Amino acid sequence: MGRFGEATAVERVAEGRYSVELDDGYLIGTALNGGYLLAVLARAAVDATPHEHPISTAANFLRVSGPGPAEVRVDVSKVGRTAATSRVSLVQDGRTLIESLITTGTLDPAAEPDWAGEPPVPPVPPIEKCTEGLQNIERDRGFADRVDMRFDPATMGWLDGQPAGRPELRAWFRLPDGEDADAYVLALAVDALPPVALNLGAKGWAPTVELTWHMRAVPAPGPLALHGSGRLLTGGWFDEEVEVWDSAGRLVAQSRQIARVGRGG
Amino acid sequence: MGRFGEATAVERVAEGRYSVELDDGYLIGTALNGGYLLAVLARAAVDATPHEHPISTAANFLRVSGPGPAEVRVDVSKVGRTAATSRVSLVQDGRTLIESLITTGTLDPAAEPDWAGEPPVPPVPPIEKCTEGLQNIERDRGFADRVDMRFDPATMGWLDGQPAGRPELRAWFRLPDGEDADAYVLALAVDALPPVALNLGAKGWAPTVELTWHMRAVPAPGPLALHGSGRLLTGGWFDEEVEVWDSAGRLVAQSRQIARVGRGG
Repeated sequence: MGRFGEATAVERVAEGRYSVELDDGYLIGTALNGGYLLAVLARAAVDATPHEHPISTAANFLRVSGPGPAEVRVDVSKVGRTAATSRVSLVQDGRTLIESLITTGTLDPAAEPDWAGEPPVPPVPPIEKCTEGLQNIERDRGFADRVDMRFDPATMGWLDGQPAGRPELRAWFRLPDGEDADAYVLALAVDALPPVALNLGAKGWAPTVELTWHMRAVPAPGPLALHGSGRLLTGGWFDEEVEVWDSAGRLVAQSRQIARVGRGG
Repeated sequence: MGRFGEATAVERVAEGRYSVELDDGYLIGTALNGGYLLAVLARAAVDATPHEHPISTAANFLRVSGPGPAEVRVDVSKVGRTAATSRVSLVQDGRTLIESLITTGTLDPAAEPDWAGEPPVPPVPPIEKCTEGLQNIERDRGFADRVDMRFDPATMGWLDGQPAGRPELRAWFRLPDGEDADAYVLALAVDALPPVALNLGAKGWAPTVELTWHMRAVPAPGPLALHGSGRLLTGGWFDEEVEVWDSAGRLVAQSRQIARVGRGG
């Protein structure tokens, strides 16, 4: 098990209760990355149900999570042959940080799609033409050490005060120590991009209010392509969609989150 | 209050408990329409919190709901100035039918978008070129009487055994008695289209497993344009995205659901 696997490991301490040691390597500023936390929740939901994959996860982020010990509580609502449904929450110091609904199921790694849409346009440029954006952001340095992301330079103008004017971000994503992507790495991937609102001139951290993601296929080994986009920024709210495509050219995860525009800093 | 308002009305019977009489007019076959039920849940969440609109709703559909008395249980997790978060469930005959997470907030009807994406292409054709598809489907007749939908004929070939080959459906949507759209009508609208998988040759009812929708703006009076699409059908699972645009040309709601392919019938 690699570093990400260890950092997201949960230990069953009772029926529906899991302990976890949240790893400060996934801090972005003073808050742990949401995708990292969703990976932790997914591990507990899969352990508590007779299925292998987190097919669908919907999460409300109530409070900022910090590193250290925490508890995952899984309340299984229904177990079926195709899918099982659970309410899963993350609790730290007696406070609920995340509430989520997780549907687990078992995807066949050999499944061929009955129908698949075209990959997003434009594609992520060849990796050698991409940049390591996060390394330049002081508060992201810990997280930038835990993921290997290479960004489409056309979507990184905001770093230099020149936002692209469209809420898009594109990047290659993999774990730096060569761990292959699995269901839990997909949870990390759907929330790994900086907020797409940065390309509309928003500044700073944009707190996610709700994020739903679906695992659509078991990812092939190799880097993942992340395509982030948005449809509307109004009244301080914006949406962010992320599609994750694997090295075999398959859509393996899709997410949408709704978040508040950062107040700078 | 019009017919839809009455059919979704909830009555507070205790702290966090609401009674509702589920209306058989929203049956599709033997199951109540999911969007109708989400409207009921949203009314309870708004009543239980100091905010006006259901900004974000994520729901797991555990069991089929039938008409008659039911209870909505609202457990408010956090109340903030911008948003409040609740766990909301629908219970009938002692069984939980839906579990959801609802974030309420208050949108400014006069808000101007800071940035808005382009409307979907192609547009829904002029209403006089659209067809009343649902009237032709025996099991949808009750529901077809409660909504006034006019479909883009290019997306309705599946009715005659000629699916378009792309998971798309487009329609105009309004309430038949002239009630204007509000937040709760948007909940109905995001799940009112027939399953987009019908245009890939799938048959019959496609049970929704998870649906998340976001209210993005207060809708202007007049018909709503619904744009349904999907990205992947594999292993019996498909996604369906619906964008709802109002008569002022604004994106007012966006949803994604993940559902199982129907088994025919």
